[in-house]
Amino acid sequence: MRTKSVDVVRISTKGPGDVSGLLSLIEQGRIDPKSIVAILGKTEGNGGVNDFTREFAVSALRTTLAPYLDLPPHRVEQRIAFVMSGGTEGVLSPHITVFTRDGAANHDSGISGKRLSIGMAQTRDFLPEEIGRDVQIRETARAVAAAMADAGIVDPQDVHFVQIKCPLLTSDRIEAAVARGHEPVTNSAYGSMAYSRGASALGVAVALGEVESEIDDEHVLRRFDLFSSVASTSAGIELMHNVVIVLGNTTSSAAPFEIGHAVMNDAIDSTAVIDALKSVGLHIDDASKPPTASRQLVNIFAKAEAAPNGSIRGFRHIMLEDTDISSTRHARAAVGGLISGLSGTSAVYVSGGAEHQGPPGGGPVAVIARLLANGSD
Amino acid sequence: MRTKSVDVVRISTKGPGDVSGLLSLIEQGRIDPKSIVAILGKTEGNGGVNDFTREFAVSALRTTLAPYLDLPPHRVEQRIAFVMSGGTEGVLSPHITVFTRDGAANHDSGISGKRLSIGMAQTRDFLPEEIGRDVQIRETARAVAAAMADAGIVDPQDVHFVQIKCPLLTSDRIEAAVARGHEPVTNSAYGSMAYSRGASALGVAVALGEVESEIDDEHVLRRFDLFSSVASTSAGIELMHNVVIVLGNTTSSAAPFEIGHAVMNDAIDSTAVIDALKSVGLHIDDASKPPTASRQLVNIFAKAEAAPNGSIRGFRHIMLEDTDISSTRHARAAVGGLISGLSGTSAVYVSGGAEHQGPPGGGPVAVIARLLANGSD
Amino acid sequence: MRTKSVDVVRISTKGPGDVSGLLSLIEQGRIDPKSIVAILGKTEGNGGVNDFTREFAVSALRTTLAPYLDLPPHRVEQRIAFVMSGGTEGVLSPHITVFTRDGAANHDSGISGKRLSIGMAQTRDFLPEEIGRDVQIRETARAVAAAMADAGIVDPQDVHFVQIKCPLLTSDRIEAAVARGHEPVTNSAYGSMAYSRGASALGVAVALGEVESEIDDEHVLRRFDLFSSVASTSAGIELMHNVVIVLGNTTSSAAPFEIGHAVMNDAIDSTAVIDALKSVGLHIDDASKPPTASRQLVNIFAKAEAAPNGSIRGFRHIMLEDTDISSTRHARAAVGGLISGLSGTSAVYVSGGAEHQGPPGGGPVAVIARLLANGSD
Amino acid sequence: MRTKSVDVVRISTKGPGDVSGLLSLIEQGRIDPKSIVAILGKTEGNGGVNDFTREFAVSALRTTLAPYLDLPPHRVEQRIAFVMSGGTEGVLSPHITVFTRDGAANHDSGISGKRLSIGMAQTRDFLPEEIGRDVQIRETARAVAAAMADAGIVDPQDVHFVQIKCPLLTSDRIEAAVARGHEPVTNSAYGSMAYSRGASALGVAVALGEVESEIDDEHVLRRFDLFSSVASTSAGIELMHNVVIVLGNTTSSAAPFEIGHAVMNDAIDSTAVIDALKSVGLHIDDASKPPTASRQLVNIFAKAEAAPNGSIRGFRHIMLEDTDISSTRHARAAVGGLISGLSGTSAVYVSGGAEHQGPPGGGPVAVIARLLANGSD
Repeated sequence: MRTKSVDVVRISTKGPGDVSGLLSLIEQGRIDPKSIVAILGKTEGNGGVNDFTREFAVSALRTTLAPYLDLPPHRVEQRIAFVMSGGTEGVLSPHITVFTRDGAANHDSGISGKRLSIGMAQTRDFLPEEIGRDVQIRETARAVAAAMADAGIVDPQDVHFVQIKCPLLTSDRIEAAVARGHEPVTNSAYGSMAYSRGASALGVAVALGEVESEIDDEHVLRRFDLFSSVASTSAGIELMHNVVIVLGNTTSSAAPFEIGHAVMNDAIDSTAVIDALKSVGLHIDDASKPPTASRQLVNIFAKAEAAPNGSIRGFRHIMLEDTDISSTRHARAAVGGLISGLSGTSAVYVSGGAEHQGPPGGGPVAVIARLLANGSD
Repeated sequence: MRTKSVDVVRISTKGPGDVSGLLSLIEQGRIDPKSIVAILGKTEGNGGVNDFTREFAVSALRTTLAPYLDLPPHRVEQRIAFVMSGGTEGVLSPHITVFTRDGAANHDSGISGKRLSIGMAQTRDFLPEEIGRDVQIRETARAVAAAMADAGIVDPQDVHFVQIKCPLLTSDRIEAAVARGHEPVTNSAYGSMAYSRGASALGVAVALGEVESEIDDEHVLRRFDLFSSVASTSAGIELMHNVVIVLGNTTSSAAPFEIGHAVMNDAIDSTAVIDALKSVGLHIDDASKPPTASRQLVNIFAKAEAAPNGSIRGFRHIMLEDTDISSTRHARAAVGGLISGLSGTSAVYVSGGAEHQGPPGGGPVAVIARLLANGSD
Repeated sequence: MRTKSVDVVRISTKGPGDVSGLLSLIEQGRIDPKSIVAILGKTEGNGGVNDFTREFAVSALRTTLAPYLDLPPHRVEQRIAFVMSGGTEGVLSPHITVFTRDGAANHDSGISGKRLSIGMAQTRDFLPEEIGRDVQIRETARAVAAAMADAGIVDPQDVHFVQIKCPLLTSDRIEAAVARGHEPVTNSAYGSMAYSRGASALGVAVALGEVESEIDDEHVLRRFDLFSSVASTSAGIELMHNVVIVLGNTTSSAAPFEIGHAVMNDAIDSTAVIDALKSVGLHIDDASKPPTASRQLVNIFAKAEAAPNGSIRGFRHIMLEDTDISSTRHARAAVGGLISGLSGTSAVYVSGGAEHQGPPGGGPVAVIARLLANGSD
Repeated sequence: MRTKSVDVVRISTKGPGDVSGLLSLIEQGRIDPKSIVAILGKTEGNGGVNDFTREFAVSALRTTLAPYLDLPPHRVEQRIAFVMSGGTEGVLSPHITVFTRDGAANHDSGISGKRLSIGMAQTRDFLPEEIGRDVQIRETARAVAAAMADAGIVDPQDVHFVQIKCPLLTSDRIEAAVARGHEPVTNSAYGSMAYSRGASALGVAVALGEVESEIDDEHVLRRFDLFSSVASTSAGIELMHNVVIVLGNTTSSAAPFEIGHAVMNDAIDSTAVIDALKSVGLHIDDASKPPTASRQLVNIFAKAEAAPNGSIRGFRHIMLEDTDISSTRHARAAVGGLISGLSGTSAVYVSGGAEHQGPPGGGPVAVIARLLANGSD
């Protein structure tokens, strides 16, 4: 029984506060605001500690959607998961991807195979000193399991992307922890983003059985051979808990979409990007070709990072030693260039900071394709 | 009669002042310093006005090579063309490519087709007010013709890459011009780099018949439909004239190399990169495969720029409106990611600022391949 | 007859979207939202084209104040002038300064001399091609006169600070103008900020009789000897017209504040800063001393810029040739350091880009002091 | 008996590789190259890990001085201490200060009081894992004592500035240490600069009795209440040992210079700067006044840093949470603005990263004045 359906819409934005595209689709009846469960966005900030474009975007979306949901703005986030990833370096184009979920009345006939599903869950708020440590790993793993159940996915193999929004430390939060006699994992606000992303990714790996469960504090940002192949985690100043979004395929979905993924072994792994496209029936540069194919690219979700050992296939890179531009910006720009080139579109979701998300220097790359009605697929 | 041969060696560097790799090859007898005609390098500065890594690299190379050439350091540049392009954003890896030239004693037997050749020429020093204007275009065109002759190339179709090093304006130079009653083309040091690169590229286009010859001041940085498909120009603070290096194929060369090129129509044009690789018998990711093929990638030379109209295939990019990172850095990072991914190596020469070098937002991409002795090619 | 009074409150912010400080003062009855006429703020963005912290701050303030004013958020700006200046480099501390205005019932007795007054006016929306040109100068001059009248100030000598918020060009706006057959003053978004600030400042100079009135297009960003000693102009992406705020002293005000100013001749002109403090009865480091004096510092408003000739008192500066950090950020950091050190507080309003605002490389510096009740002044 | 004399000359530079000013003074006989003992410079890089302007400057100075000293370039540093501090943000002007030392034949008559002296010493090369730790502290303390002896200074109270150049970790060095089974103090190249500066400063504090001698690993970058009031340490990629330069006053010197210092308690401590000027008989803005006074400013040497607690006198600063510009750049710009404004010259030596150099958020400020012959002092 296919009991649910999902819709996925990619919308360009003209700035972090721009909600005109979403509003227009709502007014046209194309998107039912009540069915929105998650919005993943790329905003044009620096993706670092002081990237306020994420908070601005969430604030604008919240204020816009509140009246449609009969909620005050500050309660909208309890209903919709907003994940804004800062940084559209290079060719990357700011946009949001809106996920909606509905009951699927009469879609059963003629659908074969597994189709896209989405599930969500949240952890409790973390204390500053819990960020980047064991507690964050365990609570995240628990939330991933809950989100899988929410999505109707049983087999971990059917999970192709787990997006997590996680908190970071600020001077204030660090001071607060110290005042209570606790030492945070780092005193650097910027550094805390890596710890939070890393612990969250290990939580995914634990939940999906990708690593042994005896993961603890000591492994975070140290044992980079431990990773999840589908985790994508972004740290933001605007929350203190983890928001978990699971994307996968299930037979209970009647959605006209499929998701697949591959793992980039390094930042120039074109083979992995091509494989991820193929996994949902797409090919190089499909996005820019006329829509005659049976499959159409909706969006690509990938993580990028600078290889921690300072080199790629034997050649030195300078990303980790540049005091002018943070390595996450370098990595997003480069991987964004590769994925945009291979797919033929630059409005793709490439997020920085891939600690424990794919192998060191690499990262997961997931693709969502729409199955066209007239396709022979 | 094949009267000349050329060798091309790519050498990684550990920093802008690192000459150890070159020195080691000289000491091993692998490179004869007296045969070096040009060194093209990527250094890890910002590629902007205050990128001193270019000057530092040239200074280090000059000091190193001077004793081998029995010349004082400051005269080495009269013999060898140094072109250092600043900016190895993203995955790009700092390196130099050394071009040597020799008489070809007995290489004729068995060689068919055209092979790689290199030619060089220089313009006179420009006055500050001449930069970015008609004079620079005409003098450059003249130098390109001279460099073609030097390379033994007659047909413009056989020219696949023209690298030019050109000057920029500084506060001092601008003031000097104004003091003499002349107004430079711009009062911005950074802005002058674009003018100088643009005028130089139009000079190449004129020389190769790619545009009508009635190009003048008014077209520079305005008529972006006028461009050269093989020009690559870099502005640097360390010189006041243009250095022109022509790379192409000719029957008079006995070199075991071929060069080919394609034109990227935009910054995500993977097809053009693949075509450029194919034009010399290479395929996707060849650089990282075992060297069993008959052809081996030596290096790729490309220009990158942010699309002046602010979008790529209909999606907005943010490169031109980022006050933190200059658009040239964004563009190099993205195009460097794509080319590195497609070729399988990140030690490629991607240079920023492609005004009149390829169509707006795009740029030339040239590939040099070595023909392996044991190949069946 | 003293018919009006003004209140000025400086409030620290924890981020561009933080309105908690203002909200708290409103709830305490310390600020009557209906009496607010202007809010000048420093936000922690880059102060450049893609500084969205300004727009975010205005959005947050608007949403917060709307219910108190019985207005929809988008109409709040018709009632209150918001001027957010991006960039709190170095020691500068993000904050807002709230100006309120009331009728002054019975304040006449015992007040001698002129006291602080505020007046406001707006121009019409400009077309993209009008920005940085004659039209913007003339419309601004007209608005300055209107704002003086609104403030009850007759003598231009009593005007000590004129803050203007003006528009900038974006890729979209440039394209739109070109599509209609008009050429904007520049094709660079970043560059347009300087033109807009410069033309607006010349408008102030014209209105106050600081320059001859035959100012036109040709003088903008060229004749830097033409300037206003009290203009402070900031360009922002969020509007297309000029908002003009005049601050000065008048006998019709019963406010317990005075304003004075001086002109910094260069970015290290400590004498001017000390003179500006003295002009309202303050001394070096007063802000950090116990409030026993009869005068208390409220805030300082200054403009900073990199000397266009590349040097300060004969020594070269590097601000104009730095491709990593824009010169406006350098200048704000340096002048902010000086003013904060001399006044003893870092929550001061130092804004970048002082084209035609004070002499080249310098800028106006205005100080508002509160006259303490127990003072013997 | 006054047995020694010292000369101090400040020379502007036109770029990191510019030695023309020094060369000209040598050729004029104004500076005897054989008497040079140290050169302290400010170069216009980013002051971070990838600031190659320091290495470039040293390389240029070395090559220039080598023939005068009959030494090969690479041995010049064994004779002359080069300390290049990267970063001339804001108004700061790139320059070098050359210190020479001579026997003082017949200077005794008429000189009263202590006069400027300079002493030097070096530590052994450190292993990567020793940087930022106990070993670096102890070896530095030993070298400070040796440098005091070299300067003829006995009383620690007579030491007014101790400049140290210390190493940093790079990816290569970190990897090398790990390969040998040792864990460096941090895995971040940028972060290692702080550790190295901090440990070196604590070494000075130990040597001068400013702190108890039981300082160890655990105190570095943790116990910021432990500091030296005269230490100034700069980390650079170009060396693996510490170079120590002691500046102070002694009766054995016949030099026409005096040095004094004060400690800035925070980055806006104008009182300390004024006190430091006064300690050698100077006043606000003296540098820009006509040289009629009996004392003339030669240079100011100061350290700057962002207050680690995130605020200055109760107002939040944003330096530690800015992902675009490193906090050391912010701090140099602000403190440079203050010191330049108070002294009247922008060619001052303000160096970033003041860990354990003065109190948290503050730093030492030392002033050298020349005693003019015609002065009545």
